[in-house]
Amino acid sequence: MSNSNDGNAAKASRLTRADILAAALQLLDEVGLPDLSMRRLAAKLDMQPSGLYWHFENKQTLFARISDHIVDHIQPDRANATDWQTRTLNAACALRDSLLAFRDGAEVVSSTLALGLGAGAALDRIRLPLDEAGIAQPEAKVAAESILFLVLGQVWHLQQRMAADSLGVASPMAQANVAEAHAEPKPDALISGVKLILGGLEKEIRA
Amino acid sequence: MSNSNDGNAAKASRLTRADILAAALQLLDEVGLPDLSMRRLAAKLDMQPSGLYWHFENKQTLFARISDHIVDHIQPDRANATDWQTRTLNAACALRDSLLAFRDGAEVVSSTLALGLGAGAALDRIRLPLDEAGIAQPEAKVAAESILFLVLGQVWHLQQRMAADSLGVASPMAQANVAEAHAEPKPDALISGVKLILGGLEKEIRA
Repeated sequence: MSNSNDGNAAKASRLTRADILAAALQLLDEVGLPDLSMRRLAAKLDMQPSGLYWHFENKQTLFARISDHIVDHIQPDRANATDWQTRTLNAACALRDSLLAFRDGAEVVSSTLALGLGAGAALDRIRLPLDEAGIAQPEAKVAAESILFLVLGQVWHLQQRMAADSLGVASPMAQANVAEAHAEPKPDALISGVKLILGGLEKEIRA
Repeated sequence: MSNSNDGNAAKASRLTRADILAAALQLLDEVGLPDLSMRRLAAKLDMQPSGLYWHFENKQTLFARISDHIVDHIQPDRANATDWQTRTLNAACALRDSLLAFRDGAEVVSSTLALGLGAGAALDRIRLPLDEAGIAQPEAKVAAESILFLVLGQVWHLQQRMAADSLGVASPMAQANVAEAHAEPKPDALISGVKLILGGLEKEIRA
């Protein structure tokens, strides 16, 4: 008769990393990032937490793979873009839409970037059109990082608002005030912001 | 003999809103935003949580005042700035330094903005030099919001890194990789990013 540890190991070895990642993404959607624990994920998979470490060395490593999955969700459309400005803008919009497609997407990706464990593709894709256009390094890097943090900052804000709305903690009066005085960033506002950065970059490299 | 509710009310009425705010800021520094609860704050003040509601209608209202305090921490230096570009850059740097002066400062302010409950001064101060320079509304608003979200996104990233470092969860190898491939945003990187946005704005209003 096998004990529960053996059962756990057997279960862990039957599951693939892809199974665990899929369950983690589902749990993220159900409970949000603050409540996404290894314990909870293990319970969802009907196994002991120790079984998860069979596949992922630690929680950070699993979160890094979740983050990579989010960033890879929508690839920039390169087909219709001939100039580097449009291609960079497309990469920024693809990142925004990828983050928005997952609950707490901005927070998952930003924290993984901060830990230095993954999600590098987020910056690489924004840099690619600039690098391919031969834009010099200090300028291209500054522009790409600024676009990355603008996207993260804006989507984070939108997702915090969504979380507040779903909890019913945002005051309707305050919402109306904000809508008027400090109008909400709409997804389109990102496009205008990225265009300003690209306009500034254009001006700089021509100077 | 007073019962404990009377004692709580007496204690609550002796404390001012400023006392509670000061204790909340100290607790934020000690435990960070995720662990800053009304229960914990009440315990720090040696009172029942219900006593806090004597002064603040709910947790969100208290957090909005914390957020206002953070945003007001450093005022933009207007003395040496003659042109709107320098004044806007100064406002952005003052906001960055204010956020960095408090643990989880970016998260406190971003969530308050998302709830529509306060921290409007963060955007107003960035908009002021643009408005005073007579820059037309759609352009000024887009530029100010882009700068706001760039500052929030960048400081958030820096503060997530600080939190990870203090918990020892960022892998040293990963840190080295990031430092090389996706170099960390330094506070100075913000200046270059804001300059790009302002350069783009200048180009746009002259077109």
